Amino acid sequence: METRIAVLGPNECSEAEYAMGVEVGRELARQGCVVVCGGLGGMMEAAARGAKSNGGMTVGILPGIDAEEANEFIDVPLPTGLGAFRNMLVVRSADAVIAIEGKYGTLSEIAFALRLKIPVIGLNTWTLSKDGRVDPGILVAKTPREAVELALQKARGAL
Amino acid sequence: METRIAVLGPNECSEAEYAMGVEVGRELARQGCVVVCGGLGGMMEAAARGAKSNGGMTVGILPGIDAEEANEFIDVPLPTGLGAFRNMLVVRSADAVIAIEGKYGTLSEIAFALRLKIPVIGLNTWTLSKDGRVDPGILVAKTPREAVELALQKARGAL
Amino acid sequence: METRIAVLGPNECSEAEYAMGVEVGRELARQGCVVVCGGLGGMMEAAARGAKSNGGMTVGILPGIDAEEANEFIDVPLPTGLGAFRNMLVVRSADAVIAIEGKYGTLSEIAFALRLKIPVIGLNTWTLSKDGRVDPGILVAKTPREAVELALQKARGAL
Amino acid sequence: METRIAVLGPNECSEAEYAMGVEVGRELARQGCVVVCGGLGGMMEAAARGAKSNGGMTVGILPGIDAEEANEFIDVPLPTGLGAFRNMLVVRSADAVIAIEGKYGTLSEIAFALRLKIPVIGLNTWTLSKDGRVDPGILVAKTPREAVELALQKARGAL
Repeated sequence: METRIAVLGPNECSEAEYAMGVEVGRELARQGCVVVCGGLGGMMEAAARGAKSNGGMTVGILPGIDAEEANEFIDVPLPTGLGAFRNMLVVRSADAVIAIEGKYGTLSEIAFALRLKIPVIGLNTWTLSKDGRVDPGILVAKTPREAVELALQKARGAL
Repeated sequence: METRIAVLGPNECSEAEYAMGVEVGRELARQGCVVVCGGLGGMMEAAARGAKSNGGMTVGILPGIDAEEANEFIDVPLPTGLGAFRNMLVVRSADAVIAIEGKYGTLSEIAFALRLKIPVIGLNTWTLSKDGRVDPGILVAKTPREAVELALQKARGAL
Repeated sequence: METRIAVLGPNECSEAEYAMGVEVGRELARQGCVVVCGGLGGMMEAAARGAKSNGGMTVGILPGIDAEEANEFIDVPLPTGLGAFRNMLVVRSADAVIAIEGKYGTLSEIAFALRLKIPVIGLNTWTLSKDGRVDPGILVAKTPREAVELALQKARGAL
Repeated sequence: METRIAVLGPNECSEAEYAMGVEVGRELARQGCVVVCGGLGGMMEAAARGAKSNGGMTVGILPGIDAEEANEFIDVPLPTGLGAFRNMLVVRSADAVIAIEGKYGTLSEIAFALRLKIPVIGLNTWTLSKDGRVDPGILVAKTPREAVELALQKARGAL
């Protein structure tokens, strides 16, 4: 069975952020992973585009009921009708997640992954602290390639 | 985008029922559809096996949190951790559903599909009546091939 | 802990149907039950109105995100944002369900309750058949009072 | 309609933390709010206990399928069978949330509330930062009483 990695990130992003998403997707596909995401625009599109550029398979777990909302790089669109709850399904379905940048939606996915003990790799994303200490739950990567390497180590170690 | 058809049916079934599921899956793959199912055994395995025998793609939306629970013919296992609620996601994600035989789980999927106005094709499955009249919501097919034809007509008509 | 009984039925109903709902709600409150429903109009309002007329407590599990959508007889509105999936939560939260009349939404709730082995009492509602035989899962009541009696027997037996 | 405030916090907590939860629950009941929580132990029990000590109403949205899992201070237990997904329903159902201490489960609830634009009051809980700056989404309270005041201002302002 192929490793499934979810790429988390905002629905709108800068060009530089988009480029990081493409590189993460491309590298995941090169490593034989299925890329799971929320299926919409911004970072979700970037990751799916990157994966398809390398012949990978992409799954988009959509908030609405219309498969047509998926970006054009999604092979398997899954409309859920669950709104923001679908974020939790994106996380739940993956062996590890890579969070890139992101706002509160991405934060909720990171937190849910930590709650479920699904490995979280972060690229320029949130920092979580409690009692003045940074929580070590998010594994910080400096580059897209390092993020993919960490995700695969963790995902495959977890199997 | 490829048409997604969900195949609904019991987790345990007779050889004759299993053979129907295989034929439905095979025919769906021949027509270029993605087969979505609950990912476990019985009719879900039959449909996925049939689809893979014809080079199709299969998605299994699982009740538990372990992708390893998926049958061996599932390309994309999606663990949800939602238990019986995941049945509703199987339905929600499809352009049309084919229900074969089935117990209360399949009945709940049929009913939810009718509720969502997703076309339902039935093969030897439940009959629903109200005030002494059979409800026309389930389109009754006599053979696996007829079930697939009806599903595709409805699914593609709905797009 | 108080017994929770869900009343299922259509969002729009005739005066005669509404009157049945009111009587079911009133009788449930007289017996000390919490009435759970989908929180909107028609049969859901009828049951909640009946319960409040007898000093009962009412919970409305809403499909949308706005508590103001609840009918005026709901003590505890619970907005879910889950759309039609919330029907399954109405069922899941109850010790037994009483289905009165109803369309596909009610049918999906009946089926999900049967799937979860939660007792289902039916008043002028769906009939389910398989292989030409009526399924015995729905316990048929002739009057609101009989429906409540059956629901309580089953709910309290199940505890 | 009464204001619903969710109290979020860990399933196990110290005596000092428990005492804060009791005070928050007591003050919420004094202000006429319904207290919503996850229905289990620790901070959830503390808040429900406090509310009941002041005649308040308490709702427990449970992860499992057994209403008996609710702590003894819950008036309306709602078993969901949704596991960790039920955390999102606790948040979704409230006009504002008060997070006290907490681990990853509480963090996921805070993040989901921020995502849904539901006001979040924090008492000794997580700090969220991005790009080296603390995110202002969590309104920090120093005492239980201040937390309740802030929650009510925000909840009632939001109506």
